[in-house]
Amino acid sequence: MYSLEELQSQITELFSRVQIPDYPENLYQPISYSMSQGGKRIRPLLAFLACQVFDGKISDVIPASLGLEIFHNFTLLHDDIMDDAPIRRGIPTVYKKWGANTAILSGDTMFVIAYEHITRSNPKILKEILELFNRTAREVCEGQQLDMDFEKQKNVTIGEYIEMIRLKTAVLIAGSLKSGAISASASIEMQVAIYNFGINIGIAFQLMDDLLDSYGDEKIFGKKTGNDIITNKKTFLYLKAYEKADFNVKKKLDAAFLLKDNNLKVKKVTSLFDNLNIKPETEMIIDYYSNRAYQILDSMNLEANKKSIIMELSQKLVRRNY
Amino acid sequence: MYSLEELQSQITELFSRVQIPDYPENLYQPISYSMSQGGKRIRPLLAFLACQVFDGKISDVIPASLGLEIFHNFTLLHDDIMDDAPIRRGIPTVYKKWGANTAILSGDTMFVIAYEHITRSNPKILKEILELFNRTAREVCEGQQLDMDFEKQKNVTIGEYIEMIRLKTAVLIAGSLKSGAISASASIEMQVAIYNFGINIGIAFQLMDDLLDSYGDEKIFGKKTGNDIITNKKTFLYLKAYEKADFNVKKKLDAAFLLKDNNLKVKKVTSLFDNLNIKPETEMIIDYYSNRAYQILDSMNLEANKKSIIMELSQKLVRRNY
Repeated sequence: MYSLEELQSQITELFSRVQIPDYPENLYQPISYSMSQGGKRIRPLLAFLACQVFDGKISDVIPASLGLEIFHNFTLLHDDIMDDAPIRRGIPTVYKKWGANTAILSGDTMFVIAYEHITRSNPKILKEILELFNRTAREVCEGQQLDMDFEKQKNVTIGEYIEMIRLKTAVLIAGSLKSGAISASASIEMQVAIYNFGINIGIAFQLMDDLLDSYGDEKIFGKKTGNDIITNKKTFLYLKAYEKADFNVKKKLDAAFLLKDNNLKVKKVTSLFDNLNIKPETEMIIDYYSNRAYQILDSMNLEANKKSIIMELSQKLVRRNY
Repeated sequence: MYSLEELQSQITELFSRVQIPDYPENLYQPISYSMSQGGKRIRPLLAFLACQVFDGKISDVIPASLGLEIFHNFTLLHDDIMDDAPIRRGIPTVYKKWGANTAILSGDTMFVIAYEHITRSNPKILKEILELFNRTAREVCEGQQLDMDFEKQKNVTIGEYIEMIRLKTAVLIAGSLKSGAISASASIEMQVAIYNFGINIGIAFQLMDDLLDSYGDEKIFGKKTGNDIITNKKTFLYLKAYEKADFNVKKKLDAAFLLKDNNLKVKKVTSLFDNLNIKPETEMIIDYYSNRAYQILDSMNLEANKKSIIMELSQKLVRRNY
């Protein structure tokens, strides 16, 4: 069995060999730029890992892994337009560097390239992989829509928020794992279990992202904290704070979120979050979803060393430093 | 064999049964709006016709037909953002009605829905249909990029222009016909012939569109003429005019294209086009590509009644009133 590091280096090697055409240059150059930014390649790693755990041949999961990662990068291109985001992974977004039209069309083309890779799947599993990929892609779009809707919607419940991050983030994590299971011809029972495991880990992963945005160590987290607060983003922390606050504290939250001085705003909001115990509340819900995932994993009929490598990756996703 | 009218009414019936989900409303309502605008459903008609001509079962081409038409509508959604277009088929574009973000995300979702239909193809032909669809979609994106590039590019040759419309328009016409042939399990030879027929008819179709934009009868054409002239679009007519003009006439064309008064501009440019014989020049190149298509059709080993129904549809596409 390959270690996570070995799988990761196979994936790095795989992506270094992906060829993007040259012409039309204005279409493909932004795609090369987007793909060369790397990122953590979490989705291919999950697919590789699941394929290995279910005794498949890694080569069988390569088309889906490439498709899933290129799809993920495509969504970032379009999300950055919708969010008017100037920076991604420390460098200018395609949208900022080349404009909205380029980001739209290069994104569309990446979506086609993702399907081109998916289409190279073993014909025996092609239909199954495609159905999973289509469903996942559709749900990710639905999640992005809900995310945008919630920006304008006054009352968002925590239940609605969890459903939104399930669609926007967790289904792609779960779909990556299930792609590995399908590629390894795992039983339907195992496919369902690893998918549900992925949904719960995926939700925990996004909640951890919310937590790190406000409470991460900038040196370890790698980006400036407080961005969600500055943009009034309705994260779990925000929603939980309003849920717990009484009338007076709500007024203080309202006032803090209206502050124009960003440093002061982050300081004030964080201090109100602290008073309301939002950090431990968030850790508690992260643990809740992680534990649901671990229970599913525990109940699966898999050798101990396989469970432990899945655990190892999950904990990398969910127990990040802060 | 069904007549064109019978095939058309089957297609109308088919699209009336397409279900679009309700929730999230802000995602799916623009999709329903876009799909309910109808349009001529040319691409499904081509696919149905080719399937019938090659003795296939119409039911086998339904998934690809739905996919091709929904894909076409998706490209319109995104093109309208890139072209900043307020009106399409006489009503506001999704982009104008709901904004760019909605048009981006609803468009992306339509793209997924197109693939969902394609995925329902008979498993025996799924991979072939998918490969054709992927390639076609990629080329349409490349064509749109070249179209945008040419807006900013000073010198565009007629050869480059024909290559652009081949990618942007003709490959989808050709791909629709070939989807029908694949669905009917036609021979590779027939698939290649009908595809090449479609490329030539598709180029003629787009050139006719260029011609009608300047010389169409508004009552029959159904939209105001002169739009390409007003927007300085580098159509075949524009490029041919500059190709034929001597130094003095070029200066006159430059001056006319700079006019701010749209009515005067259309009048002046059209008069210069007339002096340069641009209308007959365009008719000549339309005939050239139509004839190439008809030669291919003629050489195909098909019964006369089948050739004549293909001719009937082609002439509807290319010999429109003006």
